[in-house]
Amino acid sequence: MFIGAQVSLYPMTSDFVDVIMSSLRALDPYRDTLRIETDDISTLMVGAPEPLFDAVRDLFACAARQPDHVTMHVTLSRGCPGEPDDPICRCETLTRAQGLSLSERQAKAEEAVRTASALGVVVDVQFSLYVLGQDRHMDEIYGCIDFLKNSGTFLRSKNFCTRLRGDAGAVFETLRQAFLRFGPAEGHVTIDMTASANSPSTR
Amino acid sequence: MFIGAQVSLYPMTSDFVDVIMSSLRALDPYRDTLRIETDDISTLMVGAPEPLFDAVRDLFACAARQPDHVTMHVTLSRGCPGEPDDPICRCETLTRAQGLSLSERQAKAEEAVRTASALGVVVDVQFSLYVLGQDRHMDEIYGCIDFLKNSGTFLRSKNFCTRLRGDAGAVFETLRQAFLRFGPAEGHVTIDMTASANSPSTR
Repeated sequence: MFIGAQVSLYPMTSDFVDVIMSSLRALDPYRDTLRIETDDISTLMVGAPEPLFDAVRDLFACAARQPDHVTMHVTLSRGCPGEPDDPICRCETLTRAQGLSLSERQAKAEEAVRTASALGVVVDVQFSLYVLGQDRHMDEIYGCIDFLKNSGTFLRSKNFCTRLRGDAGAVFETLRQAFLRFGPAEGHVTIDMTASANSPSTR
Repeated sequence: MFIGAQVSLYPMTSDFVDVIMSSLRALDPYRDTLRIETDDISTLMVGAPEPLFDAVRDLFACAARQPDHVTMHVTLSRGCPGEPDDPICRCETLTRAQGLSLSERQAKAEEAVRTASALGVVVDVQFSLYVLGQDRHMDEIYGCIDFLKNSGTFLRSKNFCTRLRGDAGAVFETLRQAFLRFGPAEGHVTIDMTASANSPSTR
């Protein structure tokens, strides 16, 4: 199994370099458990979903605590057949999900969001979940949407994606649960996700 | 068939509202052929791939001609089973792709990129193509990657995505061909795409 993300932070300010560089310090606690490589478009993070979603959440929360409008785009992937197996991506939650029914997985996902620690930063997110390599991919996507509607972070459905809003702790836990618990445990699942904070459009 | 995109423009300047509002004028020629709706996170564009990719290209080219670093994220989708049929999305290229072999589709895609008009703006792109709802989804993705490597806009492969670089005309034609000619004509295909221009990291 190979799990990771391509992450890009976009501060809408002429001081964008400073905001990016200071926010990247939020990744320091995760440099032992994730492989992190930056180029001119995005930062690759490879590792298990526990540190991976915590790192992405803390990076965005750090930028969102600054006054400027900031967005982040993340391309998440697990189980891509074109990527090598990597032991740092090993995930007990995925292994245990084998054999659980859809309703059991929905209940566990809801519990994880309910018990997520709050960070004190409100974020907006929209994302799409893609379950690849199987005929009936929409069953798992509709099952995930049912979980989202009960998650406490659901804002509304849009064409091609779902909007979430709430504390960064609950919102990024919602994303982690969507990524982990829907689609086959050994399957190829991806997420296309955008986060936004301090937007003048929502004031 | 339902075809469309969620599009977000991110100018890395304190004048981001002005850059966004002035660039949105590039969409005016497409308002008759596309349905365009904006909220606080993204702009929905629904319609056939010809005006859709032209509109996204012209929006980004307009922003990229201004001096500031700017990025754009686009979530593209065709054939999602959860969306209604819409006559404005009708596409002859998709209909004609039925029954063409992979190598015929690759040749037509390469020809389209070769004959694309240049806009005089160099852009960087990275994107992922997802073919959903079928068992052997990687065959079409590997077929698309072969096309990309012969397109003249290929820069390099990255984990989870492919990097393109070149004139906006050729690069957005490459994206349109990837979206149209790979995966079943009536299937569910999505793209997760990021464009970047004027980045201080590439100077």
